[in-house]
Amino acid sequence: MATSQVTTRILRRLLASGVNARAERLLARMPPADIAPLFSGLTPDEIRTVIELLFRRRRAARTLKELPPEMLPQVFDAVTDQRLAAVLGRLEIDDLTELVEWIPEERRVEVVNRLPDHKRAELERAELYPESSAGRVMTTNFVALDEKMTAQEAIDSIRAAGDDNESILYLYVVDDQRALCGVVPIRRLVSAPPARTIGELMIPDPLSVRADDDQEEVAQLVARYDLLAVPVTDVDRRMLGVITVDDVIDVITEEATEDMYHLAGLSEEDRVFTPAHLSVRKRMPWMLINLVTCFLAAWVVGLFERTIEQVVALAIFMPVVAGMAGNGGTQALTVITRGIALGEIEFSSGLRAAGKELAVGLVIGATTGLVSAGFAYLWFGKPALGLALVLAMIVSMAVAGLLGAAVPLFLKAVHQDPALGSGVIVTTFTDVFAFFSFLGIGTLLLDRLV
Amino acid sequence: MATSQVTTRILRRLLASGVNARAERLLARMPPADIAPLFSGLTPDEIRTVIELLFRRRRAARTLKELPPEMLPQVFDAVTDQRLAAVLGRLEIDDLTELVEWIPEERRVEVVNRLPDHKRAELERAELYPESSAGRVMTTNFVALDEKMTAQEAIDSIRAAGDDNESILYLYVVDDQRALCGVVPIRRLVSAPPARTIGELMIPDPLSVRADDDQEEVAQLVARYDLLAVPVTDVDRRMLGVITVDDVIDVITEEATEDMYHLAGLSEEDRVFTPAHLSVRKRMPWMLINLVTCFLAAWVVGLFERTIEQVVALAIFMPVVAGMAGNGGTQALTVITRGIALGEIEFSSGLRAAGKELAVGLVIGATTGLVSAGFAYLWFGKPALGLALVLAMIVSMAVAGLLGAAVPLFLKAVHQDPALGSGVIVTTFTDVFAFFSFLGIGTLLLDRLV
Repeated sequence: MATSQVTTRILRRLLASGVNARAERLLARMPPADIAPLFSGLTPDEIRTVIELLFRRRRAARTLKELPPEMLPQVFDAVTDQRLAAVLGRLEIDDLTELVEWIPEERRVEVVNRLPDHKRAELERAELYPESSAGRVMTTNFVALDEKMTAQEAIDSIRAAGDDNESILYLYVVDDQRALCGVVPIRRLVSAPPARTIGELMIPDPLSVRADDDQEEVAQLVARYDLLAVPVTDVDRRMLGVITVDDVIDVITEEATEDMYHLAGLSEEDRVFTPAHLSVRKRMPWMLINLVTCFLAAWVVGLFERTIEQVVALAIFMPVVAGMAGNGGTQALTVITRGIALGEIEFSSGLRAAGKELAVGLVIGATTGLVSAGFAYLWFGKPALGLALVLAMIVSMAVAGLLGAAVPLFLKAVHQDPALGSGVIVTTFTDVFAFFSFLGIGTLLLDRLV
Repeated sequence: MATSQVTTRILRRLLASGVNARAERLLARMPPADIAPLFSGLTPDEIRTVIELLFRRRRAARTLKELPPEMLPQVFDAVTDQRLAAVLGRLEIDDLTELVEWIPEERRVEVVNRLPDHKRAELERAELYPESSAGRVMTTNFVALDEKMTAQEAIDSIRAAGDDNESILYLYVVDDQRALCGVVPIRRLVSAPPARTIGELMIPDPLSVRADDDQEEVAQLVARYDLLAVPVTDVDRRMLGVITVDDVIDVITEEATEDMYHLAGLSEEDRVFTPAHLSVRKRMPWMLINLVTCFLAAWVVGLFERTIEQVVALAIFMPVVAGMAGNGGTQALTVITRGIALGEIEFSSGLRAAGKELAVGLVIGATTGLVSAGFAYLWFGKPALGLALVLAMIVSMAVAGLLGAAVPLFLKAVHQDPALGSGVIVTTFTDVFAFFSFLGIGTLLLDRLV
């Protein structure tokens, strides 16, 4: 944080005093991932100059790629259509597809029209794949070989492909229909006798994914089998592209963020640097849903208005029952949601997992319930209050554990995102159940409480 | 889930009927990552047989590596010290170090003593590095070259290192003190003229990490600069090992789990398949802390016993104020914690981020507060109740937003885990603050409420 602020200050001073050559040298020394954070401290004019300087060194495209997408609009605003098209035209297709989506709609057609013809055609093809599919993440830049080639011929074709080909860890062997039939890891090629044929060297029938597969499944596959890249094909196994491990890391990070965000009722585009008015707009719908659920809880409490009127101590301990149940439900929910994401449910089963969370809730409810009952007795001197507290905590923490497990498992079973909405559903029901059980038991024991 | 259950059933039937040869063939066809989930459905006897079958094909070690660590004890229990040492002896040092920690203490010395001498020595060295440090994750299996070698000589040394060297994407150039001075990507070597020297081909002064660096920082470095591997050195830049991208993926996944778990007050070893009694033991401390915080909230409510006695409607709306503030706090906390983990704070600043969350809380508090006030008025017909509700919601949601941002930022500033404990701290204070503000305002307006 501190470093990037200092660099921003130096950069601004250089730009202000017009010594662009020195600014250019400063930028040239920095990797694109380190340049990107500087943008948030610059004015539109300064951004324009920096983009120009980076462009001259062919680094503007790679820097844009490193920006968090939510920051792109302000950078795009500072650059002309012409320059933007020239910068974007240097990107690999997977990055281009992603960045184009962030160009304001009214400029998008204009910018896309100015892209080089072959890039525009590739972009149009890529946009046919569904969002978050393998086709959107893949690069179409790969080396395809023929079985009958020799190792030496293969090496020559790599040399022809140039040094900065990002997917050149594996070479893909295709037949005359361009269907994938094998893969040669580059390290195997290195140590092979030059005259050996590719057919002899290749690993036949490699793992591959389809262009319309979900990116999350692709990421799990790569992580599970420790791959460095995975080939992408169409229904007829024709080779279309490659997904490399650096893209997989992005997908894994993105999916973890998504899960954490969904549990808290947040949308993915609501980040640290998202302007406050946009964050408000994005959070409001969930907050209104949450408000409805809070009123549901209030309504349940309202059912027991007469009881509370007679025993105010019940109102005092409401936060204890609800707070503990809410926490227990969140714990179960977190364990199960993360377990689904990591494929741990494979090592157990849904039913067993839900049963376990129920049992854990029961035991923790009983223990903390007894402690609470003791305190309540010391405070108000009424044994019945302690009894209501311990019974309500056992029941509501058991239900919280069961719900925390059952809700995401159910959502997964009906092919929905297990994290989306579970947080709100679980906390609502645990609250409602906690209030209902505690105040209900309180009403039954009313004679001993007054 | 379903597939692995079916395979487990087939495997058990084969083992039961003693046709181990067929079981062996079934296992031989499966990747280790697919065999691992089967273990949870087997008896100790069956596990022993499967380990034997895998061992014969030299696959037992790689299968153990794929098991979630919490399942290791039951697998270890089924195998003799002798066999376990033979299996573990085939692992790379980073995996060995991790697995050895899961051997029950009373057996550990015995098993370690039976490891091959060179593995034992390597293990003892690895265990000198701090936990979660780069030294623990690195493999010591890499190819080191001399600047004066030719490309052809380098290729010969790779051939000598064998095909299954996991880190052979880059070759490391060291001087006569074994200090790292350059790196040659293998793809560059492939297309180089055979007589070119390594000194000419190498990228000088590559990015490296120190063995005592934290694994999370290493993972962020690899993800940020899209590396496939990063060299690990000592203080004098002497080359010690390599961390590869597949280990980095594991670290990223682990750290995301840790953050989600810490926010919910869970310990990392508490998984879907952890036996219930262990989960209870691991959750109990946090739940007792949580209980104390709930009693703190109860005590605050207790301060207003007289007020509630006179206006029970206040007790009814307590869940609304606390529920909304709790949710707002959790949202801010999630955005900031994830933002810290992803380095997004670099694109903004801590102060700006906290200010934004405060503003978002104010606006959402005002909006949902007005809606709630309307409902409360319709329900109880008292304007003062609505006034208390809207004022309390504005104040407590603003405080929730501020705290949700400030707590993790503060923890980070004092070099603590931003997620650990923040969940409990934030929800406690938002609860306490929500009750205090709502019941406090209610007390001030008491004349108009009764």
